[in-house]
Amino acid sequence: MTTVSAYAAPSAGAPLERTTIQRRPVGENDVLIEIKYVGICHTDIHHARDEWGRGGFPLVPGHEIAGVVTEAGPGVTKYKAGDRVGVGCMVDSCRKCENCLRGLEVYCTGGGLVATYADTERYTDGAPTQGGYSTHIVVDERFVLRIPDGLPLEQAAPLLCAGITTYSPLRHWNAGPGKKVAVIGLGGLGHLGVKFAHALGAEVTVLSQSLRKKDDGLALGADHYHATGDPKTFEELAGTFDLILNTVSASLDGDAYLSLLRTDGTMVYLGIPEKPVSANVGSLMMGRKSVAGSGIGGIPETQEMLDFAAEHGLGAEVEVISAEQVNEAYERVLRSDVRYRFVIDNSTI
Amino acid sequence: MTTVSAYAAPSAGAPLERTTIQRRPVGENDVLIEIKYVGICHTDIHHARDEWGRGGFPLVPGHEIAGVVTEAGPGVTKYKAGDRVGVGCMVDSCRKCENCLRGLEVYCTGGGLVATYADTERYTDGAPTQGGYSTHIVVDERFVLRIPDGLPLEQAAPLLCAGITTYSPLRHWNAGPGKKVAVIGLGGLGHLGVKFAHALGAEVTVLSQSLRKKDDGLALGADHYHATGDPKTFEELAGTFDLILNTVSASLDGDAYLSLLRTDGTMVYLGIPEKPVSANVGSLMMGRKSVAGSGIGGIPETQEMLDFAAEHGLGAEVEVISAEQVNEAYERVLRSDVRYRFVIDNSTI
Repeated sequence: MTTVSAYAAPSAGAPLERTTIQRRPVGENDVLIEIKYVGICHTDIHHARDEWGRGGFPLVPGHEIAGVVTEAGPGVTKYKAGDRVGVGCMVDSCRKCENCLRGLEVYCTGGGLVATYADTERYTDGAPTQGGYSTHIVVDERFVLRIPDGLPLEQAAPLLCAGITTYSPLRHWNAGPGKKVAVIGLGGLGHLGVKFAHALGAEVTVLSQSLRKKDDGLALGADHYHATGDPKTFEELAGTFDLILNTVSASLDGDAYLSLLRTDGTMVYLGIPEKPVSANVGSLMMGRKSVAGSGIGGIPETQEMLDFAAEHGLGAEVEVISAEQVNEAYERVLRSDVRYRFVIDNSTI
Repeated sequence: MTTVSAYAAPSAGAPLERTTIQRRPVGENDVLIEIKYVGICHTDIHHARDEWGRGGFPLVPGHEIAGVVTEAGPGVTKYKAGDRVGVGCMVDSCRKCENCLRGLEVYCTGGGLVATYADTERYTDGAPTQGGYSTHIVVDERFVLRIPDGLPLEQAAPLLCAGITTYSPLRHWNAGPGKKVAVIGLGGLGHLGVKFAHALGAEVTVLSQSLRKKDDGLALGADHYHATGDPKTFEELAGTFDLILNTVSASLDGDAYLSLLRTDGTMVYLGIPEKPVSANVGSLMMGRKSVAGSGIGGIPETQEMLDFAAEHGLGAEVEVISAEQVNEAYERVLRSDVRYRFVIDNSTI
């Protein structure tokens, strides 16, 4: 075991503080990663405050991890010391079920994925998983991604969760030339949804509560920007979109948003609202529309996303902070006061 | 104008009674059809009782029409006197919008389809439309289907609504060999859903409240039959289906049914429940699942469905009644006491 520095919530809702945690020895197929940057995802806050009831305190959040390999186990074939790598929301899965075999580990049906933190290493040593607000992490190479040269690590970190969470549904529902895509919310997820949809060739519209971030949205690649607080938006855009990515966790009027879809359009939920999704069947039936959900993405697609990002010079818009600013950053995330992702410089941990 | 006999609801909720109505003269592109049989759809009852607030009384229901052409206008190219034909839920649409041009008239965005009854002839004479509980109807040939030889007219009639309503989503969501399809409810729609899904090569499961109709379901082509009243059903079938067709209008526990879908599975609503569809986003996200709606089908696909039915010797299971039994039949439909579709012999009108 190796003792490493970390930032942890000692108990539910308590401020995060510096501590040390144990990392397992580097096993046959493991790599030891020196974490350079870790993104702050809204999910981190939910878990640190135990709002989803997963427990696991003291809890080290962080599943947008970018760093450099410092050691590779004897069976590792893909990575060597010095390689630039990332780790996202999962560090293991059953690897045997149909979904794991086809690279959809996120939908593992053999017991589910092993989350990067607030979970248990079901397939190795049974230890609690601890995330990326730490100086090092040990992960099986199967769940490690290569970060291409030219993609700065601090911009790459948020791609490991926010990036793949938007890229995967865009690909699955065929966003591309000739398709009209709307992105609800211009935050951590939304700004990457806009960048990826634009890079994929789709016509992109941001639907945001106000026009406050309009200049940003257009600069990020959106073709149009509308305020959902203005009822005219729903009249003007009726029947417009092939795909709507909903990146906000606030409850929405399902029928109003479904009215914005074209025939055969799909509205995909990427955030988890507190209340269930609700819509009249008529809103689905009139135009053969769908409401769907999508979670992160599988490992092969995450690699594809990183390669695509590097190819298109596309990364997250980040504000790099030191570890001691993390509690303040949490408050700012809750106030949507970040453009567009906080990333911790792990050298400060 | 031609005066023809019909059965109509004189006012909302009143028993249907024999009356006469006017049919427009046979225009350039119209055919006059002598109706031989008309199916009784649950929608007829909703409209006759004005439960959807469409009005239009006196109201002649009926949109599962099978008959024979007796006269064709001078511009008619597809049909001639003596041809066996059908008419379904629509008799016109704008014909110009993108959906109409690609044969999805049911999703007409240029003003919507003109329903076979309880609607207005927006593109011709502005008269109220009146349905198939009558001896004759005049319809533009564009909205008339050919009923292939070998498909008995009384078995064909229900295909014009119940048939295409199940066939269209099965085709759209790729039901076929290797796919597992569940049909919720074994009624007018459900029994045709089972027949079509089986004929398309899918593995078919009926999900019904009880096992009361199990023998029927298996005889109709289902491979499996489960009672949804038994909680074990939801445990046993978790993660099973690629596609679930919901043919019932009762409100269901959305999360429970979504748990029966495999990764990337879709649950399609074909009936309109009184309450909105509701589901937790987690139920959609864990497995990238979708909830969708589907309405009837377009004219080209309706023809494809009739041809497919004839090819597979597939028709509706019907109980032929005389017109004077219609009010009693309505009561029996409401009690689900029909196997599986009442069809009126229009010679008795």
